[in-house]
Amino acid sequence: MSSDTGSPLLLYTGKTPNGYKASILLEELKLAYGGPDYDAFSIDIRTNVQKEPWFIKLNPNGRIPTLVDRSRNNFTVFESAAILLYLEQHYDKEKKFAFDPVSDPDNYSEMIQWIFFAHGGVGPMQGQNHHFNRYAPEDLPYAKKRYIDETKRLYEVLEIRLSQGREYLAGPGKGVYSLADLNVFPWIRLHEWAMIPTLDEWPSLKAWVNRISERPGVKAGVAVP
Amino acid sequence: MSSDTGSPLLLYTGKTPNGYKASILLEELKLAYGGPDYDAFSIDIRTNVQKEPWFIKLNPNGRIPTLVDRSRNNFTVFESAAILLYLEQHYDKEKKFAFDPVSDPDNYSEMIQWIFFAHGGVGPMQGQNHHFNRYAPEDLPYAKKRYIDETKRLYEVLEIRLSQGREYLAGPGKGVYSLADLNVFPWIRLHEWAMIPTLDEWPSLKAWVNRISERPGVKAGVAVP
Repeated sequence: MSSDTGSPLLLYTGKTPNGYKASILLEELKLAYGGPDYDAFSIDIRTNVQKEPWFIKLNPNGRIPTLVDRSRNNFTVFESAAILLYLEQHYDKEKKFAFDPVSDPDNYSEMIQWIFFAHGGVGPMQGQNHHFNRYAPEDLPYAKKRYIDETKRLYEVLEIRLSQGREYLAGPGKGVYSLADLNVFPWIRLHEWAMIPTLDEWPSLKAWVNRISERPGVKAGVAVP
Repeated sequence: MSSDTGSPLLLYTGKTPNGYKASILLEELKLAYGGPDYDAFSIDIRTNVQKEPWFIKLNPNGRIPTLVDRSRNNFTVFESAAILLYLEQHYDKEKKFAFDPVSDPDNYSEMIQWIFFAHGGVGPMQGQNHHFNRYAPEDLPYAKKRYIDETKRLYEVLEIRLSQGREYLAGPGKGVYSLADLNVFPWIRLHEWAMIPTLDEWPSLKAWVNRISERPGVKAGVAVP
């Protein structure tokens, strides 16, 4: 299903954690600024439409989300976290969801560090967890356990950070809600799918998930597509 | 082995692709600007010293590389790509290895996209390839093949990009050597360890590896520690 109204932005997305990252930020921007408007084009990754030549021209990696900015000469962005940083630069002019790299370089770097931690750790490892525990054609107990253990270890790293008197991953004091949180939230929210029934082992992380889940922009974002 | 001379920067690193990313950029900066000087503290990850409490205080993820900037109040940076962006912002004032986000936002975004592609794809998937093909206590043909196939698929994505008349991943025309290249080079260089004996299937990628290998800063960087 697609909804194409010729909005300034076109987001190719799907019902996956990486897809929700982009739609959450777009909904947060709408609530904060009234825009930009975007069309969400739903890609059903089970059909492999994202591997077809027309899509590979947009994103050689054949993945969602992929963003096309019609208002900037159809500039195209792939990789979920790169989409967040692109939207931030062009559409969050008051830096409501990030720290300014020039005037606030240390908080900016901390945000970037947690974004990469999620992008290179939580996302790919929880993804392998899903594969071996949910989809793989062979039952491989070693691999199943490897990725459950690694997912839990990465949750513990987030717990270490948040248990230091923090409500959010980056920013001064208790922290400030930013791309650092938004970028990893959709993965943690899906913990049950990763064979981790509760977050009780990680009380600060559990409180953080609940805190973020209540945001109107987040509720709207996880309903797209 | 460590070498501690009280230089402005202290890099905790090891003989891994992610470690080399940081030392390559530091050596490139030395050649381009004469500095900053850095001390390389070698971490032997086989001994798990990176999981000891003193190191977890620096990097809750317990990984190398980790950078401490003594000249900026011991500000600490973890995640290899976040280290590159930090060094770039503070020590590459003439933007010799990156694109300016403000004056050149599209090339900056393309660089960021390829950095995330490597950080979420090539690094973690080739890492799983190494695990199942080199280290795992069980012989699991399905997992071995899965990650060899995925490593090859990711190399093919780089080939698609480079075969479009490009010498480098980001930048106008043939591209310009930047963090986008430097960030993924140490992984591709290690293809034989990932059970991929040659890069002959990907001629543009093979030429790119050879091109980058010849850089004096790269040669110096891969010799640290």
